[in-house]
Amino acid sequence: MAFDDLDLPSGEFKNVVGGSATYAGLAASHFTEVRAVAVVGEDFPQATLDDLAQRGVSCAGVERTAGKTFRWWGRYAKDLVSRTTLDTQLNVFADFKPKLPQSYTQTPYVLLGNIHPALQLEVLAQIKEPRLVAADTMNFWIAGERALLGEVLKKLDLLVINDEELRQLAETHNLKRAARAVLGMGPRRLIVKRGEFGALYFEGEETFFVPAYPLEEEIDPTGAGDSFAGALLGSLAQRGTLDRAAIRQALHTGATVASFCVEAVGTKRLCALDQAAIRRRMTELRALVHLGD
Amino acid sequence: MAFDDLDLPSGEFKNVVGGSATYAGLAASHFTEVRAVAVVGEDFPQATLDDLAQRGVSCAGVERTAGKTFRWWGRYAKDLVSRTTLDTQLNVFADFKPKLPQSYTQTPYVLLGNIHPALQLEVLAQIKEPRLVAADTMNFWIAGERALLGEVLKKLDLLVINDEELRQLAETHNLKRAARAVLGMGPRRLIVKRGEFGALYFEGEETFFVPAYPLEEEIDPTGAGDSFAGALLGSLAQRGTLDRAAIRQALHTGATVASFCVEAVGTKRLCALDQAAIRRRMTELRALVHLGD
Repeated sequence: MAFDDLDLPSGEFKNVVGGSATYAGLAASHFTEVRAVAVVGEDFPQATLDDLAQRGVSCAGVERTAGKTFRWWGRYAKDLVSRTTLDTQLNVFADFKPKLPQSYTQTPYVLLGNIHPALQLEVLAQIKEPRLVAADTMNFWIAGERALLGEVLKKLDLLVINDEELRQLAETHNLKRAARAVLGMGPRRLIVKRGEFGALYFEGEETFFVPAYPLEEEIDPTGAGDSFAGALLGSLAQRGTLDRAAIRQALHTGATVASFCVEAVGTKRLCALDQAAIRRRMTELRALVHLGD
Repeated sequence: MAFDDLDLPSGEFKNVVGGSATYAGLAASHFTEVRAVAVVGEDFPQATLDDLAQRGVSCAGVERTAGKTFRWWGRYAKDLVSRTTLDTQLNVFADFKPKLPQSYTQTPYVLLGNIHPALQLEVLAQIKEPRLVAADTMNFWIAGERALLGEVLKKLDLLVINDEELRQLAETHNLKRAARAVLGMGPRRLIVKRGEFGALYFEGEETFFVPAYPLEEEIDPTGAGDSFAGALLGSLAQRGTLDRAAIRQALHTGATVASFCVEAVGTKRLCALDQAAIRRRMTELRALVHLGD
């Protein structure tokens, strides 16, 4: 969990509550009960955690320690595609050792956020027989912790990364060959996020594509990838199966919820979402690729 | 019609027969009878024109004049996404005034290649009551010939451009709003090509998305956009209707044929295509976005 300072084309926004756990948790909360594991500092409002809990994101696993909350300051280009990190303050996140409450140890659907692979392994070790383990990672760990990341990959059912990370991990430019290489490293399933261009899903010889929902008003893409992953896992947990139809539906759900995330600063739109709005946009997204009449 | 010198990651290829008319014509030839209008110089082999004619691309409208054929020399980056023009020689193309043979004047489906908008208008003036007029254009005409291009847009049923051109034409970054702006300039339908990310179709409030077929072996993207447009129009001509299902099918056909184009240097793969290969890949492309089971 984090505070973000966002320099957006639409204005500057300070102290926006963010972080992977927040975005993914809120996104998933529309489909299932959620258990968040994170760390915050003394400056993080209890009211925000209470609000999350009320929305169905349990914060029993959110540790509060002495010091300040993780903080990220980023500036987006006018097209919202490229962004520059102006400052990162790890703060309490620097010494974070995720410790799961007893009540979390039987959690069937697990999403490991983009943290040090050693910590991802420690989280996993605390969970008994999960049904699906998904994880995110980033260039920093791919370059600097490849061996440990390799250990994580072997334990994954699903890896969710973007196309640059895929190419870096596979050391191959061609997406399809890179995907095959990464599937060979352990995860049975792979999702490649491509931002406004949608996402690709790989499993064995199967490929599935979900487009991004074309938005007329793009405000803040922060957290869209996390919202995608959160809603995806939430949808799978809700359906309770991992068959082909459930996974394809979950990918459409992820793309739908991610599109809402972009429509307002921070988690504002994710919080204001209701089932009817999600259903309407799911129908539109389906129509966007539906061939027959 | 052109000679291309292609510096590709896989090697250097000189005097490759190319040009919009060649790629679009060959792509369309798998679905319908094609009539090409173009200019070549004395250096262009008659055997190539004879071969095109044998493949169903009539070359009665291909003028041969004194001088050399249009020539383009381009170098592709290793990822095949960006390319640099090293040299362009207009040659006989500089003074080209398309003149349609009498036998071409009743042609129902018209694709106006990316030439000066004044010439696009002259071609159109020679055709009696076409059923569908589609056109391509480029940054050069959008910046330098906006008024004349505006005249062309008013006469179009379908504009086929890439996303950069769309944004330049609409002077708007957001794709959906840019599309609406361009639809307001005249064309009833708009296709926005996004290369490896697929294409978007806009008509009124309707949007349709077709992904690019994910290729494992990308060799030469030259002419892929022209192949897309050619196969699209060929498919529409074959179906004979412009209803929703026919258009969506035609977009999948365009994406399919464009993907073949990329698999070999120049028009090699387009020439070697057969119906069974097209059908197989169409099925795969459909499965790529098919939600239900």
